[in-house]
Amino acid sequence: MIQVGIVGGTGYTGVELLRLLSVHPEVDLKVITSRSEAGMAVADMFPNLRGHVRLGFSVPDTAALKACDVVFFATPNGTAMTMVPELLEAGVKVIDLAADFRLRDPAEWERWYGKPHACPELLAEAVYGLPEMHREAIRSARLVANPGCYVTAVTLGFLPLLERDRVDTAHLIADAKSGVSGAGRGAEVRNLFAEAADNLRAYAVPGHRHLPELTQNLRAAGARDPSLIFVPHLTPMVRGIHATLYARLLDPALDVQGVYERRYAGEAFVDVMPAGSHPETRTVRGSNICRIAVHRPGGGDCVVVLSVIDNLVKGAAGQAVQNMNLMFGLRESTALDAPALLP
Amino acid sequence: MIQVGIVGGTGYTGVELLRLLSVHPEVDLKVITSRSEAGMAVADMFPNLRGHVRLGFSVPDTAALKACDVVFFATPNGTAMTMVPELLEAGVKVIDLAADFRLRDPAEWERWYGKPHACPELLAEAVYGLPEMHREAIRSARLVANPGCYVTAVTLGFLPLLERDRVDTAHLIADAKSGVSGAGRGAEVRNLFAEAADNLRAYAVPGHRHLPELTQNLRAAGARDPSLIFVPHLTPMVRGIHATLYARLLDPALDVQGVYERRYAGEAFVDVMPAGSHPETRTVRGSNICRIAVHRPGGGDCVVVLSVIDNLVKGAAGQAVQNMNLMFGLRESTALDAPALLP
Amino acid sequence: MIQVGIVGGTGYTGVELLRLLSVHPEVDLKVITSRSEAGMAVADMFPNLRGHVRLGFSVPDTAALKACDVVFFATPNGTAMTMVPELLEAGVKVIDLAADFRLRDPAEWERWYGKPHACPELLAEAVYGLPEMHREAIRSARLVANPGCYVTAVTLGFLPLLERDRVDTAHLIADAKSGVSGAGRGAEVRNLFAEAADNLRAYAVPGHRHLPELTQNLRAAGARDPSLIFVPHLTPMVRGIHATLYARLLDPALDVQGVYERRYAGEAFVDVMPAGSHPETRTVRGSNICRIAVHRPGGGDCVVVLSVIDNLVKGAAGQAVQNMNLMFGLRESTALDAPALLP
Amino acid sequence: MIQVGIVGGTGYTGVELLRLLSVHPEVDLKVITSRSEAGMAVADMFPNLRGHVRLGFSVPDTAALKACDVVFFATPNGTAMTMVPELLEAGVKVIDLAADFRLRDPAEWERWYGKPHACPELLAEAVYGLPEMHREAIRSARLVANPGCYVTAVTLGFLPLLERDRVDTAHLIADAKSGVSGAGRGAEVRNLFAEAADNLRAYAVPGHRHLPELTQNLRAAGARDPSLIFVPHLTPMVRGIHATLYARLLDPALDVQGVYERRYAGEAFVDVMPAGSHPETRTVRGSNICRIAVHRPGGGDCVVVLSVIDNLVKGAAGQAVQNMNLMFGLRESTALDAPALLP
Repeated sequence: MIQVGIVGGTGYTGVELLRLLSVHPEVDLKVITSRSEAGMAVADMFPNLRGHVRLGFSVPDTAALKACDVVFFATPNGTAMTMVPELLEAGVKVIDLAADFRLRDPAEWERWYGKPHACPELLAEAVYGLPEMHREAIRSARLVANPGCYVTAVTLGFLPLLERDRVDTAHLIADAKSGVSGAGRGAEVRNLFAEAADNLRAYAVPGHRHLPELTQNLRAAGARDPSLIFVPHLTPMVRGIHATLYARLLDPALDVQGVYERRYAGEAFVDVMPAGSHPETRTVRGSNICRIAVHRPGGGDCVVVLSVIDNLVKGAAGQAVQNMNLMFGLRESTALDAPALLP
Repeated sequence: MIQVGIVGGTGYTGVELLRLLSVHPEVDLKVITSRSEAGMAVADMFPNLRGHVRLGFSVPDTAALKACDVVFFATPNGTAMTMVPELLEAGVKVIDLAADFRLRDPAEWERWYGKPHACPELLAEAVYGLPEMHREAIRSARLVANPGCYVTAVTLGFLPLLERDRVDTAHLIADAKSGVSGAGRGAEVRNLFAEAADNLRAYAVPGHRHLPELTQNLRAAGARDPSLIFVPHLTPMVRGIHATLYARLLDPALDVQGVYERRYAGEAFVDVMPAGSHPETRTVRGSNICRIAVHRPGGGDCVVVLSVIDNLVKGAAGQAVQNMNLMFGLRESTALDAPALLP
Repeated sequence: MIQVGIVGGTGYTGVELLRLLSVHPEVDLKVITSRSEAGMAVADMFPNLRGHVRLGFSVPDTAALKACDVVFFATPNGTAMTMVPELLEAGVKVIDLAADFRLRDPAEWERWYGKPHACPELLAEAVYGLPEMHREAIRSARLVANPGCYVTAVTLGFLPLLERDRVDTAHLIADAKSGVSGAGRGAEVRNLFAEAADNLRAYAVPGHRHLPELTQNLRAAGARDPSLIFVPHLTPMVRGIHATLYARLLDPALDVQGVYERRYAGEAFVDVMPAGSHPETRTVRGSNICRIAVHRPGGGDCVVVLSVIDNLVKGAAGQAVQNMNLMFGLRESTALDAPALLP
Repeated sequence: MIQVGIVGGTGYTGVELLRLLSVHPEVDLKVITSRSEAGMAVADMFPNLRGHVRLGFSVPDTAALKACDVVFFATPNGTAMTMVPELLEAGVKVIDLAADFRLRDPAEWERWYGKPHACPELLAEAVYGLPEMHREAIRSARLVANPGCYVTAVTLGFLPLLERDRVDTAHLIADAKSGVSGAGRGAEVRNLFAEAADNLRAYAVPGHRHLPELTQNLRAAGARDPSLIFVPHLTPMVRGIHATLYARLLDPALDVQGVYERRYAGEAFVDVMPAGSHPETRTVRGSNICRIAVHRPGGGDCVVVLSVIDNLVKGAAGQAVQNMNLMFGLRESTALDAPALLP
């Protein structure tokens, strides 16, 4: 059994990690920390876990975490980097669900997160935890940076077009729509039900923290000088991201459907739908699937890719468990097999 | 492996049955029928099942169904009763998720459903599939009548108070709130998103088909001459029933919390919360749990019971699987262990 | 033109007051205060008011308020009572949308609000602003206590039954369902979209601050020793309250429908629907109407009253404007005539 | 008073027209027809209109319609064209809210709507009812084709960029998100609450009927050889369209914000927000406003325009009333002044 610790489990990625890990046959949940909720039973905060998780939140305690085989960080940006070096040194593997280890360039990290990185030397070692791009590196990683939710949907959607110079990478557009759980469980007026229900708005159009991570992925996928317009929208649903991607084909004769089907043929968690399909976010609700359809409206040179995920699963906790499975030599889809909840 | 057939799988109870059965370790899905959708792959109608269910809908065919060990009917009221006798005769077990076998009195059935019953002789044999009341009978049943969703929430909520004459059964009130999936997948204007969203309404206040089933259960639980006011409400959520029950205690000194805790102490799927709690429907979303809290506002003689279920799981497909597990000697909670999806 | 001031306009009752007053033909909006948002244009916080309200929030300033004819308080409980005496002395009329002047008994106020009342001598003078009960007193009032939203729906629903001893007032039940805007615009985790959407829960079942106000109204309506069980529920809609009321008739021969129709025959804002109806909350969305239907399920002695309002209009800002219209001798429905927004 | 008739008032544009016209000071509602609902009171179908509209639906009757000054068609595509010639001949003005007179080219109409046009000779006469483009022509029109909802949001969003060759019109993208009321009140499974709630999907990506209308507008605005990718999405809200538009500037030095502000300076119903804004659909809920913000992410050559409307108001019934006001010489915003309902 893998001894598992979680740092910061009071947000939505935390409760989702607990939901998935509580039924994982190879996992023994040992410790979950929260400074603010120390002493509270996890199941008192999240009653869906009554009977499934008997742990209580405890004060962060390095000794207890060092006794784990792997520690997940479901903390705000900037927390993991202060604790990770010590854990790695103690031989603990780490999966960070925040952004601390996603960017390889410390200067870029500092620019977007407004402070120096606490352990810039680890940025080069950290493996970016998108198994469809970096599976082998993840298997042997000590430290995995779990991708952001928007970034997962957009990267998987663009990937087959970028790997062989198939589109004009100077004019990529990603119009993304997210459910409100993506904004976290913090008490913010703008995320109140009475603010977000029956409403839709774009945000952060001038620039978004996910942009450098996206650009880094586009480059890693093969785009030489990528330029991406990324417009995120808040939509009145709890879970789900729908990324609508626009790119111009360099070779109009390309069999785009075939490119996608071949690229993802062996992937358990990427489902390329038949030509003409329109994926719905609810078909991945609660599941680790990224479901994709590709279109060429009017038969022109513009490719439209529709890519949906559950932001809390493939966009966060599910992908983290997928990474853990790889790091510990388990079947990649262990505990991630359940179909989505529809309706 | 249990060979399973489903008649009528195009509604919400159908897709939920498929979701649960597709991961059941002892089940082999053999046939699913739908006259209107014959030839269509199940996963084309419900893409959440892509990769999980490879069956297609087929024209109802008695021979194929007779080759099954158990057949579930997820059909409109009045369909199962025309096919069940032949299946039972062939040694097939049957679980009907509609109302055909819920009432023991053929005359009452006829009054509420507006036509004669096709096999009234089976009404006495059919076992009412609420395991918390009739577990032993279910184990040996050939034919199980799966309870209605409202009825499950209300019956489990009242049960501990009725078994020993603890309340004035002449003045019971059940104010129930349901999500829209309870109204089924039929194309009805009143269930359109633009009609049901941001809206709340009571319906069927003068009288509801669930009333005779409820009254029958109250009697079975011990109420001699029960009179129940039942007011259902349609609320803008997809899944969930919240039943708010009101009853007057005969003995104000009764330890109501204790009565509930003892009654349900051994039940895997009824969770009595600590005193002072307020169960939320989302804490049972996708799970087979009925979560209950009991209150005595102001310390008076009125007991208020809050009882929540997922109408498609404990209120339909999950309870049907629970019944199947009992009928085939499996662990009662097989394939029903996953925690609810929250948020 | 009536010179109007608003104290505390950053919540939902505030923006709703502004929406209604901005098109009121006799109103001149002079000042709106908010300590936290002073300097901000109202229309920057609430862009639906761009082009309609040109005012900005200002620091609370007694001189500016004293220059008004009427001041509305849309503040948290406990604020109005510290400023009202000075305003009244200056000849300004006051309408308080919070609870400061709703209870006549200072001891009871102190018990429920946890501090001494700042001007208990005004409690006897304050007129309870439910026009359907106290119209004449409101016309000549200096100080009006605007009723709570739940209380409005419940009181108007019970009123015709109480005025002539028609029901057993020792066993009244009010099962109320509210949209989330009723909880205000404060940043609270429990009111986040991802917490409240696709979810339903009761709350405050052991006891709610609205109970003493309700009981006071029941008495004022004629109930001698009323006992009410009040169970509020949070439901996933933005606006709307649906109160489902249960009472036992003393005379089963009573023509309940007729009683309601006669009682409200002259009322512009109470709509008694035809027998057999089920009012929907959306039919009053944005309007000042309370829509009511009465039922006797099974023809027994239990009356079920369905009463719906928009919590922000008839339950708050609309009723406040109705009161202002009365206090200034205007047509009672001035600026309150628009039909509800459906769908 | 203008004598008004409505043909087909049982859908969402119908009830919205009634809501707006019932408080219009110059309108006398004379007749509303519906073959299927003849004999039913309008307010029985739409109880929000109780006390506001006393008419009942009547069988379509040319004589009664000919006695009107103006007739609105809120019918499915293909109905108006069979009745309009007779009405025009009788001197009645017509505003068609469907698509019968939106395209100027009969061949194109036939291609997209699958049948010959019944009065192609009127297509040249019909005035396209977007006042911000064709105000003067509307004033003197006998027959106005009211624009589609998506088309209104997209056209107003692109207009200032097209009038002077400011963008590369060969690569325009419109990613549009609509509430479910845009799909109408027909009983369709895909628009059920339990299908559309907590879900998001694109549709009609290969081609949509609104495309030829859009292209016609782009040309009319000045684009010579426009090519537009239009991707509509269904989102879980009742009302609202959010169009996110992407275009490439020909002159990167252009003051885009200034262009928009100047273009719409005199328009009562187009609100250009300050630079950096993100319009929310709820800020136009129930109002006739189109609210627009423009961005240049990263300061590059890509313009992102955010354009929101209420699909039932500026996208249908409100714009129709705006057109009527122009056609009858009234103040353009008569009965369209109320602020949006927020929250």
